This record gives sequence, structure tokens and C-alpha cells, in this order.
Amino acid sequence: MQHNLSHTISLLSRTPAALNAFLRDLPDAWTFCNEGANTWSAFDVVGHLIHGERTDWMPRARMILQFGETQTFVPFDRWAQESESQGKSLPQLLDEFARLRSENLDELRGMNLQPADLERRGRHPALGVVNLSQLLAAWVGHDLTHLHQVSRVMAHQYREAVGPWSAYLGVLHCAGHSSP
Amino acid sequence: MQHNLSHTISLLSRTPAALNAFLRDLPDAWTFCNEGANTWSAFDVVGHLIHGERTDWMPRARMILQFGETQTFVPFDRWAQESESQGKSLPQLLDEFARLRSENLDELRGMNLQPADLERRGRHPALGVVNLSQLLAAWVGHDLTHLHQVSRVMAHQYREAVGPWSAYLGVLHCAGHSSP
Repeated sequence: MQHNLSHTISLLSRTPAALNAFLRDLPDAWTFCNEGANTWSAFDVVGHLIHGERTDWMPRARMILQFGETQTFVPFDRWAQESESQGKSLPQLLDEFARLRSENLDELRGMNLQPADLERRGRHPALGVVNLSQLLAAWVGHDLTHLHQVSRVMAHQYREAVGPWSAYLGVLHCAGHSSP
Repeated sequence: MQHNLSHTISLLSRTPAALNAFLRDLPDAWTFCNEGANTWSAFDVVGHLIHGERTDWMPRARMILQFGETQTFVPFDRWAQESESQGKSLPQLLDEFARLRSENLDELRGMNLQPADLERRGRHPALGVVNLSQLLAAWVGHDLTHLHQVSRVMAHQYREAVGPWSAYLGVLHCAGHSSP
């Protein structure tokens, strides 16, 4: 389907509650496990999503509207959560993500973007020229990439435990394509 | 990690609320879309999970405890939801899934399974001899397979809309391995 701003906001608004319902108070054995060296746990993923709320999606949307292609987005630090999440609990991160996402969506709604705005272009440091519509659709795709990753990381923990059922469980046959 | 009954119940108990938080009242454009012919939408997945609650996991656990390897599990109908979900809304299915899962986990807790019980064996119609521990771990892996699938099916809808960001969004590079 074409990008639809209303559908985008609907989905983005639900991600924090979905992660909260799934992850809060789950045993650490699920939420702090990863897929091996240099891969992420659910805890890492929530920290990464927080960093995106602060530095990626809305700052880039503002930059497109203000500067167009004349200013290049600041590269996104995909490992920022390593330091930023230190000393925090998963419930704290879930609360922070929910708060930041809510604030960002309030700002997005307040922009009252029109079709012509969504066509406005900016410059990505690696991808080159992109437009605002693509940025907002990618925000959705980024949430979904990390929901997909969290389910895969957890399933990995039971890779041996499921025995012969592994043949039937698609999530166990997903390559590590979305890491990190 | 090894199968852990307490961890299994913790995760299984959260899936209905996670799906509810993510899917309830989302636009139909997200919840009724699929990946093409003979693939499933989020609506189909919730119906499939309901059928599993009724006919798969706990009936098979009971069969293992009662009959061991002498009786073969009834094959699981992976398309049952096509008829069973007809005329129902997604909120109705989410409620039904939550109720059945809760009842099943109450029964599972009530079995007060000991390590020796988890080693008891049954017979799968295709996989052959399996044990109760593997069955319960596979129940978790099955939930995670379908959370993984739902995120992939939704991301597919924005495959074009994200433009050049598709290169970075792992969920768009997941083969259709968990369908249906």
C-alpha cells in the first residue's frame, strides 16, 4: 500500500504498549538474552528505540521541513544504548520509550502535514535523497524490524529445547538479517 | 537455555496482551493485509492461535500424560481458522484467544508438573517421538513464530513506501519461512 500518514501514526502509537505488554516483568532470562556476540537483547532493543525517538525520526523530519536537501541528517548511532541504558531497568526503559513516542507523535500530529509536505526531500548521509513520506514509513518499518528481532532473539533461547519441532517453527529459520 | 516451565508460562501468559495492545483497533489496512495468495493476515494468525489453544497444545499435553507413546496426536489443521473466524471481528478473536490461553495456563499450572513428567513421551503424527518438555517449548516457539510473522506481514505493506530505507530494514529481508 501507499504511505498513509494516519495509518503510520496508528501503528507507531501502539508499539510502546505492545512491547510493554510483552516484556514488562518477564524473567531476565528472556529479556537480557541475545543471539551471541555483538547481537542485541530485548533490553538493548528498547534502548535503541529510545535513542531513535531522541535523535533519529523527528529530528530528521524537522530537518527536512526546515532545510530540505541542503543539510544532511546526522548519522544514527546504532550502539548508543550501550552507554545510555546503563544503570536503568527494563521497566524504566519501557516507560521512557512510551513517553518519548507519545511526545513525538503529538508533535507529528501538530505539524498537520499535507500531501505536498510529505513529498519534501532531505538528504540521508548514506542513502542520499529521500523524502518525508519515506522517512515516516521507515519509522514504521523500523518498529516492525525490532518487533521481529525481539521475537527471533527469544525463540533462539529455546532452539534446542523444542527438539524436532524446530523444523516447523519459522522464527528459528530466520537469518540474523535484522541485527542489530 | 534449557526448557524451564516457569519461563515458559511467563512468556505464554503475555502473548495475548501483547497482540491485543498491538492489534486492537488498528486500521483494517494493517490487520487484514497479507503477503499474497495463500498467506495470512494478522486476523488469520489470531484465529490460528485460537485453534491451537483448542486442539493442539493442551490436548497433546493431556494425551502424553494419559497415553504416552501409545496414542498419536491428532494432526493440527493449519487452515481451520478460515471457517472458524468467519463472521467474527478481530476484537472478538483477541478476547477469545486471551480467555482460552488463560484457561489453558490455569490447567497447566494445576498439573503441577515435575521434572520426570516433563520427560514423558508422546507420538507426533509427523515428527515421531517427542516429550512433554519439547511440546511446551514448542508452544512458546509457536507464539514467537507468529509474532515474528505478524511484524513481517505488516512491514510488507510498506515495502515500497519506505523507499531506499528498505536496505536497512531487516524485516523486509525475511523470507516467507514461517508462512503459514
